[in-house]
Amino acid sequence: MTYGDAAGTGERADMRWDGWGDPARAKTLPASLRLLLTSVVGRVPRRVVAPTWDEVEVITPPLDAEDVAALAAVVGAGNVRTDRDARLLRAGGKSTPDLLRRRAKRQEAPGAVVLPGSEDEVAEVLRTATERGLAVVPFGGGTAVTGGLAPHAGAHRGVLSLDLRRLTGLVSLDEVSGEATLRAGTTGPEAEAALGARGFELGHFPQSFRFATVGGFAAMRSSGQNSAGHGRFETMVTGLRVVTPTGTLHLGRAPGSSAGPDLVRLFLGSEGTFGVITEVRVRVHRLPEETFADAWTFPDFAAGADALRQVAQAGTGPTVIRLSDEAETSVSLAQVGAIGKALTKGCSVVVLHEGPAGLAAARREATSRVLAGAGGTPAAPRLAASWEHGRFDAPYLRDALLEHGIFVETLETATTWSGLHGLRTAVTEALRTGLGRSGHKILCHVSHVYPTGAALYFTVVGDLGTDPARAAETWARTKAAVNDAITAAGGTISHHHGVGTDHAGWMEHEVGAVGLRVLRAVKAELDPARIMNPGTLVP
Amino acid sequence: MTYGDAAGTGERADMRWDGWGDPARAKTLPASLRLLLTSVVGRVPRRVVAPTWDEVEVITPPLDAEDVAALAAVVGAGNVRTDRDARLLRAGGKSTPDLLRRRAKRQEAPGAVVLPGSEDEVAEVLRTATERGLAVVPFGGGTAVTGGLAPHAGAHRGVLSLDLRRLTGLVSLDEVSGEATLRAGTTGPEAEAALGARGFELGHFPQSFRFATVGGFAAMRSSGQNSAGHGRFETMVTGLRVVTPTGTLHLGRAPGSSAGPDLVRLFLGSEGTFGVITEVRVRVHRLPEETFADAWTFPDFAAGADALRQVAQAGTGPTVIRLSDEAETSVSLAQVGAIGKALTKGCSVVVLHEGPAGLAAARREATSRVLAGAGGTPAAPRLAASWEHGRFDAPYLRDALLEHGIFVETLETATTWSGLHGLRTAVTEALRTGLGRSGHKILCHVSHVYPTGAALYFTVVGDLGTDPARAAETWARTKAAVNDAITAAGGTISHHHGVGTDHAGWMEHEVGAVGLRVLRAVKAELDPARIMNPGTLVP
Repeated sequence: MTYGDAAGTGERADMRWDGWGDPARAKTLPASLRLLLTSVVGRVPRRVVAPTWDEVEVITPPLDAEDVAALAAVVGAGNVRTDRDARLLRAGGKSTPDLLRRRAKRQEAPGAVVLPGSEDEVAEVLRTATERGLAVVPFGGGTAVTGGLAPHAGAHRGVLSLDLRRLTGLVSLDEVSGEATLRAGTTGPEAEAALGARGFELGHFPQSFRFATVGGFAAMRSSGQNSAGHGRFETMVTGLRVVTPTGTLHLGRAPGSSAGPDLVRLFLGSEGTFGVITEVRVRVHRLPEETFADAWTFPDFAAGADALRQVAQAGTGPTVIRLSDEAETSVSLAQVGAIGKALTKGCSVVVLHEGPAGLAAARREATSRVLAGAGGTPAAPRLAASWEHGRFDAPYLRDALLEHGIFVETLETATTWSGLHGLRTAVTEALRTGLGRSGHKILCHVSHVYPTGAALYFTVVGDLGTDPARAAETWARTKAAVNDAITAAGGTISHHHGVGTDHAGWMEHEVGAVGLRVLRAVKAELDPARIMNPGTLVP
Repeated sequence: MTYGDAAGTGERADMRWDGWGDPARAKTLPASLRLLLTSVVGRVPRRVVAPTWDEVEVITPPLDAEDVAALAAVVGAGNVRTDRDARLLRAGGKSTPDLLRRRAKRQEAPGAVVLPGSEDEVAEVLRTATERGLAVVPFGGGTAVTGGLAPHAGAHRGVLSLDLRRLTGLVSLDEVSGEATLRAGTTGPEAEAALGARGFELGHFPQSFRFATVGGFAAMRSSGQNSAGHGRFETMVTGLRVVTPTGTLHLGRAPGSSAGPDLVRLFLGSEGTFGVITEVRVRVHRLPEETFADAWTFPDFAAGADALRQVAQAGTGPTVIRLSDEAETSVSLAQVGAIGKALTKGCSVVVLHEGPAGLAAARREATSRVLAGAGGTPAAPRLAASWEHGRFDAPYLRDALLEHGIFVETLETATTWSGLHGLRTAVTEALRTGLGRSGHKILCHVSHVYPTGAALYFTVVGDLGTDPARAAETWARTKAAVNDAITAAGGTISHHHGVGTDHAGWMEHEVGAVGLRVLRAVKAELDPARIMNPGTLVP
């Protein structure tokens, strides 16, 4: 078994078991992070010894032979897998707590992995699972970071992982309307490759882009790094096909409709608890003719945030705009070898403009005028180039630090512009209190802006000790306090990581008791046996 | 009793009973329409005699004394009205079939009009209505055109009209975030006046603007004439307060959230069937510093539509962009006195740009470049000025024609760009077949564009005879055939008029049987006694 091995279809590589992505891309600690570590914990710790793949034992029994036979009758025997490797690779997502749990030798896992080859097979699997009392956890790219892939059986006899990797590809592209239909299991790169061959782009680039799937983007209300220009994923979705245990929905008849509530939006963010998204219709656009990447610097975070606000409210049209606080700026500068220069006291802004020839340049000019007017100074473009170059690689750095016993995790929220600084202070204080006297550093950036507000994204780097279980415990306590602080400060419990099992306890704050009743009523109607993703979303 | 009389608070004028708006603005037939009539029916018909206000009899009994006492205990005796005038003025909306029905002397009406003064009173009224078995029809500006205000009691003893006109005004304005909270009963002009005094604008201008309310915009998924720039109303809404018979929701915590499905969107478009929207939080923007109004002409509808598509897909940022077909263009030209000129063979496009100084001009330049490249020719700006001047007056012209026995009605739908011409042909053919040998004219325009598609808006002018009941019958048959044609051609049953009772029969085509089950499940949870707006939305 190697991590790059194919499973199911023999076509797609799995992510490594105990870390992010492709092991061939795993990083050793770069010099810039060694510098950071020295400032955080005063030393570069040694590598921590973790169990090898072969040492890991799955303690959850596989589904029994009758269950397997019933599922095999639907999808074919080769598409029901109960071997240790297949099950272990669908045992959860890729949050830091997920990875800390993988430092243990005994692991829970789904009782089987089922790989349907068509929408009809998905429907039949859900019927079979309902009849046989099996819970179902839909599985796309496996990049979840809020516990939504935890193999919870709920009140059921067992749980199966429904891996959608056989439902891939571009179903159709309407070049006139700029609409593409993609099967749910299509990954980000697969989608862009298929569209790019026809001169189009989806333009959704979350950090999970290389592995996550279109169905996952929809189920989680994902937001990509180009959200300033192309919108959150939910604004790209024009239609959905959703298979529930009691029937299939084909939603989204027109780009503008007032025919009752927009039910597409009820399934975006449903995180596999109502059913399985099998196809997603999305707005796509022509590949850009021009691209500009710029960097700016601002004297402090408040000035930078106000500049981003002005850009978002004027609607000058950047594709990407992001502001790093002083701490993150100094790490970024270290990565481009510029640490120690005059700029390290300020906050950097990276801004990308794209589009048809002429229009992208006009947008860039309009944005630049606002940024300059708001007190910004043009900075070395290599900062922007460096961000672009490394935009999907942060999880590898996280893993490299984890392997040295250094805890790294990210969390995010969003609120109105007027509430932004209060929320940032509240989260920072909760983090500081939770992490206590341990050496740690908190980095923060704004990378998703809206006319009325923005998201805050925090990266925590800390020395929580070399015992993974104790580090996880400290973090769980700290994260709970942060969630309380976010709620009290008026932020949302998640801007783009979703709810999963980790945030489910805060959903009542988010939507109220009546909102929870609505979600439960929809679930009861579509999934009366409650087989879909138990424990996720609604507690 | 005069039509301008106040009801309830003594503050707001009611619309006239048997027509649109303010009777002081009622129009006689302008010369341009006389010309149109000559071309449609070969003559300018005489005025038709209709019952006077005093001749109209309400056949629905008022609520009984016990009901009235129970409601008065909640809102005060002066805010429960059972007099004929108050009830008659809430007997329905303002579609042409509504107005044709008003030609009869005997009328149905709600059994009482209840005017709550606070959100708590709304909640208490809904509890009282549930206990006493009374249906509730929320009433905002009374501008509905799809039957959603029909006083249907459903299975209940009686029905009350819940008029929200006492819940008005700006609750708060966050100038930094560009967010305003408005009470649901605030009308369009009231909202803009309150915001304008602070230098802000909502920018939602549907044709109903002068009378319709913020709560109505939200409940109906309204779309305004500036939708190209400011979006549909649903994209402006950042939060809602909704009182249901079984609890109150406060929804919308942050501008970007992935905390489960966006429940705000479940109540936008719910048309009063789940509960009563009492407050709406909306994105607002600074009043524009620059405004440009331009007109263009295209050789034909297909060329014009393709130009609008290119503008929408490039995102050049017009605030308004609309294309009239040949027939509508010639009527518009007649209105500015230019009929007979060379342009009458083409299709006119009106385009407005607004925004901060500099940016509006840059947007205009970008749009102009696309329009010119797509085969457009600049046309007399007075066409644009004339459209702006008369943008809210079409219903008065409709009434003037109705008073001469000429049937006028509008309908609308939306689809993808690639489906637009097929849909237009299908609707036009269904209209022609339905209207048969009667003299009639069909005008069409595109006034709401999206990157992936657009709305089609049809105006039908026809000689369906002077008997209102027969005209209504012919239209009902024709409209049903049009709805079938829309459905078959892949359009939505409504782009911005909503579902009401008129379109409820087509909702299964729109969202499928499983979608209807979801809507019914939400309703059953929130309104188990089914008192809210019976007959509307879900059949």
